[in-house]
Parts: sequence; C-alpha cells; structure tokens
Amino acid sequence: MNFADRLIEACRQKESVVVVGLDPRLDRLPEAIVTAAREACGETLECAAASFFKFGCRVIDAVAEFAVAVKPQVAFYEMLGPAGMQAYLETIRYARDKRLLVIADLKRGDIGTTAEAYADGWLGTLTIGARKFHPWQADAVTVQPYLGSDAVLPFIGRARTHGGGVFVLVKTSNPSSGELQDLKVDGVAISERVAKWLADRAGDLLGDSGYSSLGAVVGATYPDELARLRKVMPRNIILIPGYGAQGGTAAHVAAGFNADGLGAVVNASRSIIFAYHDKKWAGVYGPERWMDAVREAARAMRDELNGVRK
Amino acid sequence: MNFADRLIEACRQKESVVVVGLDPRLDRLPEAIVTAAREACGETLECAAASFFKFGCRVIDAVAEFAVAVKPQVAFYEMLGPAGMQAYLETIRYARDKRLLVIADLKRGDIGTTAEAYADGWLGTLTIGARKFHPWQADAVTVQPYLGSDAVLPFIGRARTHGGGVFVLVKTSNPSSGELQDLKVDGVAISERVAKWLADRAGDLLGDSGYSSLGAVVGATYPDELARLRKVMPRNIILIPGYGAQGGTAAHVAAGFNADGLGAVVNASRSIIFAYHDKKWAGVYGPERWMDAVREAARAMRDELNGVRK
Repeated sequence: MNFADRLIEACRQKESVVVVGLDPRLDRLPEAIVTAAREACGETLECAAASFFKFGCRVIDAVAEFAVAVKPQVAFYEMLGPAGMQAYLETIRYARDKRLLVIADLKRGDIGTTAEAYADGWLGTLTIGARKFHPWQADAVTVQPYLGSDAVLPFIGRARTHGGGVFVLVKTSNPSSGELQDLKVDGVAISERVAKWLADRAGDLLGDSGYSSLGAVVGATYPDELARLRKVMPRNIILIPGYGAQGGTAAHVAAGFNADGLGAVVNASRSIIFAYHDKKWAGVYGPERWMDAVREAARAMRDELNGVRK
Repeated sequence: MNFADRLIEACRQKESVVVVGLDPRLDRLPEAIVTAAREACGETLECAAASFFKFGCRVIDAVAEFAVAVKPQVAFYEMLGPAGMQAYLETIRYARDKRLLVIADLKRGDIGTTAEAYADGWLGTLTIGARKFHPWQADAVTVQPYLGSDAVLPFIGRARTHGGGVFVLVKTSNPSSGELQDLKVDGVAISERVAKWLADRAGDLLGDSGYSSLGAVVGATYPDELARLRKVMPRNIILIPGYGAQGGTAAHVAAGFNADGLGAVVNASRSIIFAYHDKKWAGVYGPERWMDAVREAARAMRDELNGVRK
C-alpha cells in the first residue's frame, strides 16, 4: 500500500501528526538503562548499542498512542560502529511491530548506480541466489538533492514497487541551511527549485488519499519558507523537523498543513525522548517514571499541533 | 599527522595518484569467492558480506603497490544490513594494515549536532565510561554541502584533532550533477561557490606539504569544470572520481593537477576491481588469475595518470 496513504490513514486514526525522532545519546539516557546495559556487558560499543535499542523500545512504547511514525536518526547508531547498526535495525523492527511507520533519517545521496544500492537496501529487496531479503525495511527514507535527479530516482523506483516513501531535503532546519538553499537563481531560491521538481514528480507516487509518497523536508524553524513551499508542493507530504529543542513551535508549523489539516507531519526528537530532563516534566515525574514524562510530552505535542491544523 | 601530508607523501613514495574504489557487487565477484562463501554459510546476508570482505582484501593485496588509497563505497556494504557494515569495518582495517589510506565514501550530511555524531564515529573518538573507542577509523570521509557549513564544520574539527581528511562534494561525476550544481547565482555556479568556501577554509587543515586536508570532490567527467575549480582551490586536495567505467580519461583529469604534479588523486572503481570482466584483461589472464587482471589495471592507470601530471 502507498506510503502516503498509510501515513494519512494513521494521522486520521490517531488524530495526530506527531513524528518522534529517535536521537539517542549515551549521556542523556535514563540512568537505569545505562546501568543495566553496563552491568550486562561492560563499557563497550556493543553495550552502548544495547542501551540505545532498549531506550528506543521504551520510547516507542511510550509514544505509540500519540505518534504516527518514528524517525530514528542513523548517525547516532552509526557512531557506535556495526553494533550500532544492528541496534538500528532492531529498533526499526520493534517500531514496525508496534504499528508505527518508520522514517529512516539517512540523508543519503549518491550517483545513480550507488543510489540504487541504497534504495535496494533501505526500501527494496536484495536477491541472493534463490532467496530474497529486505535488509533494513524502512517505510520511508530521507534523501539529499545535491547530486540531482540521478540520486533520487532510484529511491522513487523502489518506493513505487514496495510502497515506500522518500523525503527529499528542501529547506533544512539548521542555522546555516540558507547558505546554499536560499541562494536565488533567476529570482527563485534553490530550495524552491527542488520543491518544484518534487511537485512535478508528485504523480509518480500519488496515493488514493491525493497525497504523494514523494515528500519533502522543510524545517519548522523557517515558517515563511514553509508557507511558501507548502503552496509550491500541494500534494507532497512535508516532513517538518526542528519542533521543540530547535525552537519550532505549533504556530511556526501551522502553515505546513493544507486546508484539510493534513499533508504534513512534524518531528520532535530531544524535547520528547529526553522530556524527563526538562523541568516541566521532571518536576511531575521522578527519574523512575521517565517513560511517563516521554508519554506526556508526546501527548502535549499532539494536542498543540491539533490546535493549529483545523 | 595531517592527512594531506600523508596523502602527498604516499603519492611521492609510490609515484602514483591512484585511488581504487571498492564497490563490490555480488553478481560481478569472482566465481571462486562467491562459491567459497556460499559453501561456508549459505545464501545469507552474512555470507554475502563475508564475500565482500574477502574480495576487498584480495583487491587491496593486488593494488597496494600502485594505489595510495582505497575508497570503499559504503552503500554497497550498507545494502547488506549490519553484516555488511561489519564487513565494511573489517575492510577499512585490512586496508590500513596494508598501509593504504582509507577514504570512506559516505556522502553524509546533517545538521550540526548530528554531523558531530557522524564526525565522532568516522574520524574521531567516542568515550564510554573510562574507555575510548575509534568506531570506524577512516582516514578521510566524503561529505554533502547542501545543509551549509553546519554540516561540514564538525568534520573539519575532528579532522584537525585526529589528522583526518574531509572531501566535500563540489561537482559530482554523474550525468544529472548539473541540475543543481551548475545553477548560477550572480554569474557563479553553485559548485564554484562551494569551492570558494573550501578555498577560504583551506587554512583550517593545512599541512606542511602546502596542501589542505579539507578536500573537494570534482568528477573526471567534467574536465572544463575541473580546470576552473582547480584554480579556485589551489591548496585543497581534489578527489576526482569517474575515471574509467564512467568515461573519465587521463586527458580529462590532467587539469586537476597543479604544476607540481600533485594536489589531486583519481578514483576508479569498476574498471579496476572488475578488470577481469574486461576483454582487455580477460584475454590475458584467465578467471583463476583475476587478481593479476586487477593488479595490471591498477598499474596501467597509474602509468596513464603519471603521463599527464608531469
């Protein structure tokens, strides 16, 4: 089934547009998880990876009711070497078991034949002899546009075959995103040119919902661009990161939704998964009830967003 | 020791500017390696990964005399899941043991805090309790510029601390690279703007050789751009992919070198590692002597390039 349709369906059923970013960091995990992993396997990369997996599972348990998807950031797992990648894979599987969609935040981008390898591995299948494998089995991935269409088309191809989604970076949430993305060519910003390309190709992955699985990443931290880019890409699903810790608010992302209150999902990472470090929640729940802090932060985010999208 | 200095030193000692790209593909590996791996562990991702590792080691053995570095393309290993990443790590270690520099072709790029995680994992170190780890230990990595300086500076920071190198994509070798990279802003192409940024920051990682470990990727398939970008970035090491199978020739890359015959290294992947599929070499060496074909292809590439750089 088409990824956009699955995502829109989840938004309707859960009355939510929340995506929770899984960005684990050793120095911010709940003490109980770190200690348990260390006692089991010592100060090793494998031990750290085990604690990332355990943490991810508990966060998924806590937010599953309020989030439509999780967005595990591969950098934090990759940092731990192959053991981290094993934890990443298991985290994807756990989230899918809990009926959450998984947007693998990879930001990969390479020349055509290499992009095919990425697309096969993350969205597609791999044949070895008589057997077929789904190596990573993400529902969707994020992709870089700097190399042009060669780098994106293989992902679109695999997404079409396997019901996957592709979010291409358009306007990212970081402070320096404008250095390249805001440059204007004939009066049109680079980000808008990428957006127009995505709008032109939306039909390649259009679902029955009227939305396309060929999505775009536009940061919550640039509300004016978000409003403009929403109009440029009416049918592409927009993934909006930068909510919470990076400074994005519900008011900032309001213009990301269409008149139907849909068409975008909003990601927060640190402000949800580390909610127990936040005074707002730490005062209510002690360290033992860290999962309740995560749950309530996700619920609050859902409610805040529902307040601006209808 | 500074990465650029180590690379220039290797170029001088070996009288070579050859980089061999490790882009393994199951359907092109020597039959003997595929069969042996399959007999040992069956039709599995782990078995495929084991054959990639074995193949990489034999290629490294064959080219070590003629190449200054290898550039393993992570996409092909990542495609096999965590087992592939384990093979990637072991391939890096094997190459370093053979005194080859390792340019991890990752093309990663993300917002600041996430880029730090990538940089720590690939070039730097990670502290867990009282222990310190070098999770991947590449000598250098490739990086995307679309997110601006936030995405690059953490790599420069770790490269400075650990003697690493950073190659930022400037003008890539693929057919569609111009869609974004050739766009002109006030008469200057995007690729040239990225190049100017790299030239301005070359001093951050300058070595005693006069070259900077802050490098650039410029494809052999665009010789005019290569000539222009060489002048824009006189001190940045240029990594030139696209030689061989993608169509780049010695004549195409000639303008990538400075007057000292240095300042650039040239990567070929398929034309070297799969040389035994090429009529030119297959006729001379039978299937059993596939490593000789690889060796001679690397030697020929070294000689062709030496012919144009002096």
